[in-house]
Amino acid sequence: MSKLETLVAKARAIRDDSLAKVDPPLGPLPDPLPLNVTGIPKLVLTEKECEITETEPIALLEKIAKGEYSAVEVAKAYLRRAALAQKLLNCVTELLWDRAVARATELDEYYKKTGKTTGPFHGLPISSKEHFSVKDRYVNASFVAWVENKVDQDAHVIEVMESLGAVLFVRSTQPQTIMHVETETVIYGRSVNGYNTNLSCGGSTGGEGALLGLNATPLGMGTDIGGSARWPAASNGRYGMRPTAGRTPMRGLCGAGGGAPAISGAIGPLAQSRKTMEYFFKYILSTKPWLTEPTLIPMPWREKPLVPGKLKIGVMWTDNVVKPLPPVARALKIVTEALKKGVPGWEIELIDWEAKGHDEAWKLTSELYYTDGGEKVSKLLASVGEEQLPLTKWIMSENPYVKKQDIYSLADLEMRRDAYRTQYAEFWNQSGKDDGHPADVILCPVAPGVACLRGTAKYWSYTSHWNLLDYPGAVFPVTFVDQTLDVPEKDYTPLNEQDKFFYELYSPEKYVDAPVNLQVVGRRFDDEVVLQAMQIIESALGRES
Amino acid sequence: MSKLETLVAKARAIRDDSLAKVDPPLGPLPDPLPLNVTGIPKLVLTEKECEITETEPIALLEKIAKGEYSAVEVAKAYLRRAALAQKLLNCVTELLWDRAVARATELDEYYKKTGKTTGPFHGLPISSKEHFSVKDRYVNASFVAWVENKVDQDAHVIEVMESLGAVLFVRSTQPQTIMHVETETVIYGRSVNGYNTNLSCGGSTGGEGALLGLNATPLGMGTDIGGSARWPAASNGRYGMRPTAGRTPMRGLCGAGGGAPAISGAIGPLAQSRKTMEYFFKYILSTKPWLTEPTLIPMPWREKPLVPGKLKIGVMWTDNVVKPLPPVARALKIVTEALKKGVPGWEIELIDWEAKGHDEAWKLTSELYYTDGGEKVSKLLASVGEEQLPLTKWIMSENPYVKKQDIYSLADLEMRRDAYRTQYAEFWNQSGKDDGHPADVILCPVAPGVACLRGTAKYWSYTSHWNLLDYPGAVFPVTFVDQTLDVPEKDYTPLNEQDKFFYELYSPEKYVDAPVNLQVVGRRFDDEVVLQAMQIIESALGRES
Repeated sequence: MSKLETLVAKARAIRDDSLAKVDPPLGPLPDPLPLNVTGIPKLVLTEKECEITETEPIALLEKIAKGEYSAVEVAKAYLRRAALAQKLLNCVTELLWDRAVARATELDEYYKKTGKTTGPFHGLPISSKEHFSVKDRYVNASFVAWVENKVDQDAHVIEVMESLGAVLFVRSTQPQTIMHVETETVIYGRSVNGYNTNLSCGGSTGGEGALLGLNATPLGMGTDIGGSARWPAASNGRYGMRPTAGRTPMRGLCGAGGGAPAISGAIGPLAQSRKTMEYFFKYILSTKPWLTEPTLIPMPWREKPLVPGKLKIGVMWTDNVVKPLPPVARALKIVTEALKKGVPGWEIELIDWEAKGHDEAWKLTSELYYTDGGEKVSKLLASVGEEQLPLTKWIMSENPYVKKQDIYSLADLEMRRDAYRTQYAEFWNQSGKDDGHPADVILCPVAPGVACLRGTAKYWSYTSHWNLLDYPGAVFPVTFVDQTLDVPEKDYTPLNEQDKFFYELYSPEKYVDAPVNLQVVGRRFDDEVVLQAMQIIESALGRES
Repeated sequence: MSKLETLVAKARAIRDDSLAKVDPPLGPLPDPLPLNVTGIPKLVLTEKECEITETEPIALLEKIAKGEYSAVEVAKAYLRRAALAQKLLNCVTELLWDRAVARATELDEYYKKTGKTTGPFHGLPISSKEHFSVKDRYVNASFVAWVENKVDQDAHVIEVMESLGAVLFVRSTQPQTIMHVETETVIYGRSVNGYNTNLSCGGSTGGEGALLGLNATPLGMGTDIGGSARWPAASNGRYGMRPTAGRTPMRGLCGAGGGAPAISGAIGPLAQSRKTMEYFFKYILSTKPWLTEPTLIPMPWREKPLVPGKLKIGVMWTDNVVKPLPPVARALKIVTEALKKGVPGWEIELIDWEAKGHDEAWKLTSELYYTDGGEKVSKLLASVGEEQLPLTKWIMSENPYVKKQDIYSLADLEMRRDAYRTQYAEFWNQSGKDDGHPADVILCPVAPGVACLRGTAKYWSYTSHWNLLDYPGAVFPVTFVDQTLDVPEKDYTPLNEQDKFFYELYSPEKYVDAPVNLQVVGRRFDDEVVLQAMQIIESALGRES
């Protein structure tokens, strides 16, 4: 075997050995499997396991706190469901059976002894993307060259979450270089979507997305520098958020980087409910993580910052670069029509948000990603003969905007970034010029379309635009692709080559059962506004969230 | 004339023409002048001008608001006093007579018409360092090559302050490259200290420091990336603060930079009172400057954040690199003895703060200042044959830690910076290990000594160390050099070459009448804590502040 093959085999053995711990083992799967496998868990897991894993996470925490479920039975239910998700979707890099069961046992003992929980996350299983450090485990960050990279400490956010009572139980897949919004690696292959296994689970936090879609995690932790938490949450019809950089603990992530960072990533939740995301931020910030990670901003979670009265929502129907495809356009209509019917306690004003300059923004963003022109990553791949997958080539090697910066061009690039941020801030301020009330949030697509066919996720700007601005964005489910309603637009003249690519690619039968999500975006540090606005928007849809 | 001479002559003519506007002109000065010129204004200005300019700024604002003084008479009093300061200390680059009088006239008209003030700073004259942009004026940033650089907009902080009612009335000197903590340029020569004109007024916001010491400004605005607001405030026995980066508006400063910035500067106040600094932050932040300058953090001023009860102060007697000289050591004793006597409402606990790693920190800091190895600045100077002054050579050209970074070494440097910040955060947390109450602030020197002899300000680490950490620091006056008490330590063995330099340099008769200040430092974003702790400390000294 070549060095590459040896390392890949080692990583897969680690994964497979971890899955072999499942007790009792999973029964056989139907053969053949349907494209939509979201009904399979009911056939393979026990009724109680399904009940536990399909309970909304905050409600689940309440049940654990009341003693209705033990932490161990909850952990085992999720461990078995995640193992099943791996069989169906290829989304797990390591099941943490022993760690999770030991931890849950401790929690149960504490609860038995004291009658109390250890914290607000007492007994909630949580999952994370592979490149989050996990004590005494290997962290490869999707690089074959790093398969033997062992770390000796948990990532800061894992430490914090476990200090609040959570139970880390599974680690999940991410794409090569962690810079695709699909999920495929030389190490583990391709991860897919439970609603339609032809489709991608999204990326880069794709494994978490796949787990979510199968209810195989209540709360996943991902990173997002261009959409990596939001795409997979949206691809699987769930919730996800990229908060403002500097709010969530970041220490202890492995990644190759590429020269001095010029655009900030942030850790965000991928979750079964909006409430879970809010809970995640609120309690993490209650621990004051900035006292030990001083790059963070000491800003506690601000509950319900919107003053009841007017809620002004800018609706961005298109970014004027790639026009949203029929299911997404329909989702925008569903939500805006619902909002027009009103929400008790709020005067909702919808304004059209005209996107300007988003094409230039994408060029700038992709230039900012690899300030060394991708040199370090390319060398790391080449060091063990790991091939560049097509989407790696697309974002890095063949991207005309990616180049190696020197100290001056980097300074210039950062100035252009800041100038764009200033210009957009002015643009946002203008939305209040008539009434002194600028838009509170923007409602917009997450992507031109829904979950992708393999290798087609070549336009990130509906998410990455907000990373460039360091604006928080969160996604929520609206509907599913409808074979009757979501027919392609006739006689459409594409705006440009990118628009043409997506227009020509689309037909509804390729995306059977795919979930359709939308995004709520707020100004920098308006994370709380985004989640409160989402709650109001969901209440217009008749949901309590 | 050479190009250099022509440009220098032009800059001086701009200054001199602006001073010629003074009406009525200043009378003659005593000849010879004493070393301490702080008594001269009483001989040259009217009694009322002295009364106005010697009123504490917040009290002055109250008098203007009550109609006791007009904005025009206040502006003219300060304009004439600043013109006098220029004659005595060479600290002005441009007097803004017309702009200030026109603006004050408008304010008076508004007040006459409405009986109301226009804002919390209604009628307060304010001054700024030369490199703050001023609409339709030249901004040279101390570079001869930039003497003809005209700008078309005020710096953001000036816009904000004028929107609150302030009156910009004078611009002041700063050193070559704005990177000395003294003040001397090829363009304007050397600025000196009103308490002893042999001594420096400090730098880089040195002109503001000199104006303050002569009560020729109530409130100056400076920048601070290594001590530039604190040194000059301290050299002249007044108040100054470097807030956490990202709290005060920064747009519209001119400077050559030097590659991608790796250490953040911040605009801070230099003021006649602590109260004025607090007022400055509170009202600037009340305008939400982050909405138009999105690199800022949306954090309003938090009034009195300390919970009454214990106030724990870490006293850093020395940084273990350069030992504080006798006047500074005595000031620390004065303040700690006063604190030991107690402050009503507070349980004061003093702990010794043992400085660790400050020598390494200085190397890292000076490497961070010029990520291009000083190339851009050197070229700009050379472009018109401007010589590098000795302190420019010291910090930049001859500094062994300054080198041109590439994209990887910059990333490494930033990682080392962040690692140092994390390590120091842990160190700070340890100060609470026994009682769960970490130090609220540190009390420490501003510098090894007091206002400097020409060319000797070669150790910034008592201020720059906190810039490296992005910790807020503020200085306050304690005492003056005492010829009897502040005798050199006998039989002292210096710790190293730097320590030896300052030890051998010192004897009290060189520093007759020099003010002695100390510094209060807080954790990142604890700006409010710093100013509240200073208030408590000053109350121990019997001052209401």
